[in-house]
Amino acid sequence: MSAARTQEFRVVGKDVWRVDGRQLVTGATAFTVDYPQRDMLVGKLLGSPHAHARIRRIDCSKAKALAGVHAVLTYEDVPKTRGPIGRRADLFNRVPYTRAGQDHPEPSPWDYFLLDDKVRFVGDRVAAVAAETTEIANAALRLIEVEYEVLSAALTPEQALESGAAVIHDEPDVLHVKDPQHNTCSGVDVTVRDPEAGFAQADTVVEHTYYAQRVQHAQMELHAVVSYFDEHERLVVICSTQVPFHVRRQLATALGLPVGKIRVIKPRIGGGFGGKQEMVIEDICAALTVATHRPVCLELDRFEDLTAARSRHPMRITMKTGVKRDGTLTANEMVALVEAGAYGSHSPTVPTNTGNKNLPRYRCPNVHYKFDAVYTNLPIAGAMRGYGTPQGAFAIECQMDEVVEAIGMDPVDFRLKTTVREGDCDELSPHIYEVEAQNADEGEDSSWPIASCGLEACIQRGAAAIGWEQKRKAYALHNAADPVVRKGVGMCCLSQGSGVASIDTANATIKLNEDGSLSLFIGAADIGTGGDTVIAQIVAETLGLDLEDIVVYTTDTDIVPFDSGAYASSTTYVSGNAALKAAEEIKDSILEVASPLLGVDQEALRLKDHHVVSTQGDKRISLKAVSMHAAYVLKEQIEHTANFVSPVSPPPFAAQFADIEVDTETGQIRVVAFVSAIDAGTIINPKLAAGQVDGAVSMGLGQALIEEMAFDDKGRPLNRGLVDYKLFKAKGMPKLTTIFVETYEPTGPFGVKAVAEIPVNGPAPAVANALKQAIGVRVFDLPLSPERVLRALGKMD
Amino acid sequence: MSAARTQEFRVVGKDVWRVDGRQLVTGATAFTVDYPQRDMLVGKLLGSPHAHARIRRIDCSKAKALAGVHAVLTYEDVPKTRGPIGRRADLFNRVPYTRAGQDHPEPSPWDYFLLDDKVRFVGDRVAAVAAETTEIANAALRLIEVEYEVLSAALTPEQALESGAAVIHDEPDVLHVKDPQHNTCSGVDVTVRDPEAGFAQADTVVEHTYYAQRVQHAQMELHAVVSYFDEHERLVVICSTQVPFHVRRQLATALGLPVGKIRVIKPRIGGGFGGKQEMVIEDICAALTVATHRPVCLELDRFEDLTAARSRHPMRITMKTGVKRDGTLTANEMVALVEAGAYGSHSPTVPTNTGNKNLPRYRCPNVHYKFDAVYTNLPIAGAMRGYGTPQGAFAIECQMDEVVEAIGMDPVDFRLKTTVREGDCDELSPHIYEVEAQNADEGEDSSWPIASCGLEACIQRGAAAIGWEQKRKAYALHNAADPVVRKGVGMCCLSQGSGVASIDTANATIKLNEDGSLSLFIGAADIGTGGDTVIAQIVAETLGLDLEDIVVYTTDTDIVPFDSGAYASSTTYVSGNAALKAAEEIKDSILEVASPLLGVDQEALRLKDHHVVSTQGDKRISLKAVSMHAAYVLKEQIEHTANFVSPVSPPPFAAQFADIEVDTETGQIRVVAFVSAIDAGTIINPKLAAGQVDGAVSMGLGQALIEEMAFDDKGRPLNRGLVDYKLFKAKGMPKLTTIFVETYEPTGPFGVKAVAEIPVNGPAPAVANALKQAIGVRVFDLPLSPERVLRALGKMD
Repeated sequence: MSAARTQEFRVVGKDVWRVDGRQLVTGATAFTVDYPQRDMLVGKLLGSPHAHARIRRIDCSKAKALAGVHAVLTYEDVPKTRGPIGRRADLFNRVPYTRAGQDHPEPSPWDYFLLDDKVRFVGDRVAAVAAETTEIANAALRLIEVEYEVLSAALTPEQALESGAAVIHDEPDVLHVKDPQHNTCSGVDVTVRDPEAGFAQADTVVEHTYYAQRVQHAQMELHAVVSYFDEHERLVVICSTQVPFHVRRQLATALGLPVGKIRVIKPRIGGGFGGKQEMVIEDICAALTVATHRPVCLELDRFEDLTAARSRHPMRITMKTGVKRDGTLTANEMVALVEAGAYGSHSPTVPTNTGNKNLPRYRCPNVHYKFDAVYTNLPIAGAMRGYGTPQGAFAIECQMDEVVEAIGMDPVDFRLKTTVREGDCDELSPHIYEVEAQNADEGEDSSWPIASCGLEACIQRGAAAIGWEQKRKAYALHNAADPVVRKGVGMCCLSQGSGVASIDTANATIKLNEDGSLSLFIGAADIGTGGDTVIAQIVAETLGLDLEDIVVYTTDTDIVPFDSGAYASSTTYVSGNAALKAAEEIKDSILEVASPLLGVDQEALRLKDHHVVSTQGDKRISLKAVSMHAAYVLKEQIEHTANFVSPVSPPPFAAQFADIEVDTETGQIRVVAFVSAIDAGTIINPKLAAGQVDGAVSMGLGQALIEEMAFDDKGRPLNRGLVDYKLFKAKGMPKLTTIFVETYEPTGPFGVKAVAEIPVNGPAPAVANALKQAIGVRVFDLPLSPERVLRALGKMD
Repeated sequence: MSAARTQEFRVVGKDVWRVDGRQLVTGATAFTVDYPQRDMLVGKLLGSPHAHARIRRIDCSKAKALAGVHAVLTYEDVPKTRGPIGRRADLFNRVPYTRAGQDHPEPSPWDYFLLDDKVRFVGDRVAAVAAETTEIANAALRLIEVEYEVLSAALTPEQALESGAAVIHDEPDVLHVKDPQHNTCSGVDVTVRDPEAGFAQADTVVEHTYYAQRVQHAQMELHAVVSYFDEHERLVVICSTQVPFHVRRQLATALGLPVGKIRVIKPRIGGGFGGKQEMVIEDICAALTVATHRPVCLELDRFEDLTAARSRHPMRITMKTGVKRDGTLTANEMVALVEAGAYGSHSPTVPTNTGNKNLPRYRCPNVHYKFDAVYTNLPIAGAMRGYGTPQGAFAIECQMDEVVEAIGMDPVDFRLKTTVREGDCDELSPHIYEVEAQNADEGEDSSWPIASCGLEACIQRGAAAIGWEQKRKAYALHNAADPVVRKGVGMCCLSQGSGVASIDTANATIKLNEDGSLSLFIGAADIGTGGDTVIAQIVAETLGLDLEDIVVYTTDTDIVPFDSGAYASSTTYVSGNAALKAAEEIKDSILEVASPLLGVDQEALRLKDHHVVSTQGDKRISLKAVSMHAAYVLKEQIEHTANFVSPVSPPPFAAQFADIEVDTETGQIRVVAFVSAIDAGTIINPKLAAGQVDGAVSMGLGQALIEEMAFDDKGRPLNRGLVDYKLFKAKGMPKLTTIFVETYEPTGPFGVKAVAEIPVNGPAPAVANALKQAIGVRVFDLPLSPERVLRALGKMD
């Protein structure tokens, strides 16, 4: 039984303006580099020219002697403190991210240094310079003399796993790495019931291997930091980050400073997409400030951002599926070989999503999921929108179409039959998370029930919108005539999460001003998504206010309460729930103050349109008057902080459909139309949600068709910028249709789930499945480039 | 029965470094003008050349045409919104300062305009300019053509009260002014029991009239404002103020903006002394920003600061005292004619202190206090350290010496006999405050009991320190020989308050960081006193921490909880109590988290030296570990906001003693030694408290001897700066001795009362009383200038 929306909304569900909208469109918005400080120096990094090398000698004397150079830092100048950079990073050698009810923490690799005497990928940090101008800093970089001992490099996980491969993390004190001697960073191997028995029961077993390539966030705003000591001699770090509190903690470890001496401020952000979900350059910029006691600005250029920042994990995924003739799945197995790149970062957790955000979407009693994440001498794979899910979605959704073909069903009919529904349970995720908490007690169910699910309607409405039945038939006829331009329509189903269960943490503080306006302090980092607006809508809805009555504070670790950050589609669900709780506490306080003023019991009062009104409707007082009374007569500051951690991560669902044309002479794919039908619960702000979908589809189509980070045989990056790392532009986009299938998630604020990530997962499998219809052969590797299409058609070696 | 200190302190009572000390001595501290904004304009004001005039015509066309001028504002450009500027100011036409339990608010004069077509004193605002440089702004001021209709001016209260005097506030909509047609701003007339009967019972009735002159704060940092619109299009006003929240509210009224759109930030402040206890130039600077949409910096120069800012209320006070031969007082009457200056500002409240912080110090059954505050065409009298008390102290303490002389007692013996002691009650203050609250119910005592009083010890220890008995006798002998240089020793007793009872409001928010450090948000505005340090000491003491563990936030109305501001010696007592409560709530939360970790009941745990320890002493865990557990395992932001409003204002007490020499040929007084013996309860930080006393004595000696704001017969100021407005410098100061007589005030945090104001009250009467011994005649008017001394000696007309 699902909860249903029982109320009419005032602000929720409305296309209200973004709280930062006017400033964005007038150019008034200030990003990190718009906060210059007096006497600020420019920071620059020297990157390694080698994929794997030890620094034998480094001589900075000429660089230091250059006029205008204030600091040159190498591994010789900083403590060799190892630390983690990924989400589950630590302080004081105790891993903070412990799931509720668990004593044993989930480790994150302690394999990262501020600066090291070893470099592990081309572009890895060798030295940092702070100088008075960019020109001087660049000149200083050229004056640094480095003598390298070049080591053999592993450029694929397969190479890294070979016996005799160079050990990438041979430092003796590396911690929380699964098997450093064999370059294995992390891994998981879990089963639900008995997959082997499942395969034995199947009428058909289908097995294929799929490959998802390395792509990059390519967010508009580059990684940038401004650091300085303030007048209290505290280190202030203004940075373009999704995780201000994690950066604060990680900086403390890296610099050996107490957390209380560091203040991290996140101004407006020009895109994150996961690339800013860890400390990236904040530590080295801050180290330059520590060394010079001067403000320093360090901003990566696009080449550095593409290579020395983070990227999506490349994965080779083998799917093995047992199915009965009627479409019933008997077993589903996913085995992923994951490329971590040079440092562990998010590698213990990203690939968990690959399985648990995909496999539970299909009703199947026996499931096996396994991954190994392996170090290579290539850039660091980190968090990226979808967080491991897109790679798994590509594999499983292509695989399901192969299964469909094997048993002669229609892909839509198959999915209507086999995908989960409300009341089903996700049995895999608790295994992966090893949640042995409350609900793991004997006799209790350790699976996660799905409380809201609009997937069936997503499939149906999406199929209707793309014209599935007609096109599927028409294109079969069209292609049968063997034209140069073939046509195909493909689809896929998707699921994701709403935050990370029992991990993601949000707090919200609300302060009532004397005029009835509110100051809203949330740790949630709006990274351009409109998160601040959506949370303000939730608060406004709760209190009968308008957005204009609420000032939302930019995240500042000194001022806002703790929040684990903006990632995992968590802001609206997790931070929104915290804000809702805080708003309800504020409401209670307001009604408590108003009650004697109106002579009406608190229980018989409610907030409506800036007034406290009696449910009888006969008494009313303005919120302004109540606020003035509280401030100046009762002399109380009404202010509440509320906390939210979710025991579950309610999945949003979606079906996506692609209608394509393929030129069989050039191998070029053109996506003609693309439909996204999405169940993200209640949609708080339709325009912002639709913007999320448009952006995600563009990013997903990039992964499907044109994006790939490429390297030469020495591990040197071949993409130098956005000229040769291609992104979808408005002009190349297909016609987009977005349908929100609204359900009401009972655990979400006003029924919401998440929307930010799920639409990025589907373009690759939907297009790949359409391609299969168009050309009759499967392309198993991404991107679906002209070369691969021609190769699949046998027209190219 | 007094409470006593029952604990040993760790941080309280220690000379710990100021939290802002290192920055102050290294010059790193940022004051208002150290926050320049990009594209900032310079603001300048055109002051009136006439004491009283109507603007008949004003032509700004030439000024506006000058290149680099961005705005010229006159009364024609801004709404004529009247508003109040004093402490008890209002918003929305409802006066906010209502005493607890009272429905009727205390009004403040609504007699002030952003700009008006009438000027009421020389220097009153005529126009404001915003330009690209100071030079251009000054040139623009010279180009403004004004045609005045000069009106007759009242330069003394007596002139203003004469029938036929020009009405200074003849605007029709003036509000909360006692009798505008007769230039009377405010007044009070209260009695305790029957003064006339008291005089009838007396053996002797002594009556004299005393005069305390107009002096100025002359704080180091001039009035300064930087205003701008931030990237959220909110008006940010950085200003050197004592009352950020009041300024925010008053700005809202003046500019017609909602409170929620205004953010007031108080950086470090270079002295306030009451001169920054109201909106002074914040409104006009902000109006220039509104007009130009550009940042504007407006800083008064010393001449403007001396004349167009605020000053102490000049008062002519008649004392009439009935006394019995044994020194028993039978009636005490104080009648004050108070000069308000051109606007009402703090005039309804400053003169209440004149009576109620002085008369209750003497045991006397019958008391009468009356004042009238009268408008004149001279600068605005506002709040100033002591807030009306020094003028009353001068009158009553000189008067008591006259009484002593009349009955032939020793001044010290008389005061030991007649001043109040612990357990006595202040019967007058509740009358003046008209507190009809809780304790005014029938049968209950409506007086304020004195819960701690070290006055007897102050008198005794101060007398011993100055060498009272010996000197009094020796100087009598010395003077009897009629030498050119005469000698005298004089003394006085003092009392003050600790905040304003049932009005002053403080809130404190404390946020626990994951490393066990704290963020402390207090609205209390440290104006250079060290208030931030003292409150941090209170929090550190409560939580077993050091000052280094606490970051205290500069007041920012967006971020810190509401506080009525820094004045009335309230910070340590009122804001300290709020901080103590918040710290205790944080302590409870910490112990609650630690209890299951240690397996010890919460009640059996306490905080000590950065650890939670069991009272048995057998279990301990570091605060860091507890904080990490709260943040990452329980995932809770421990944060509390606590509120404090005091029903009483426990008086600190003091006795001050002056040892002087008088040159009877020049009339010059030299203060040789000065002793302050002060009961301010527990002293939290002895060095800071002693600094407060030294500064106050220097200020009090200025009022006693050399400071006076003087005007010519057109009301034009004669003091142009600190060359002709003399202040005491280190070189001219006497030997200072400060003795803290520590009592334990049960209502104060760790037993504190207040220290900031009381020592400013005594130098004038102590020196005047010493002068009486030295020259044998009384000088009734301040300052005790050479001219007045010579006149008293009959050597000058």
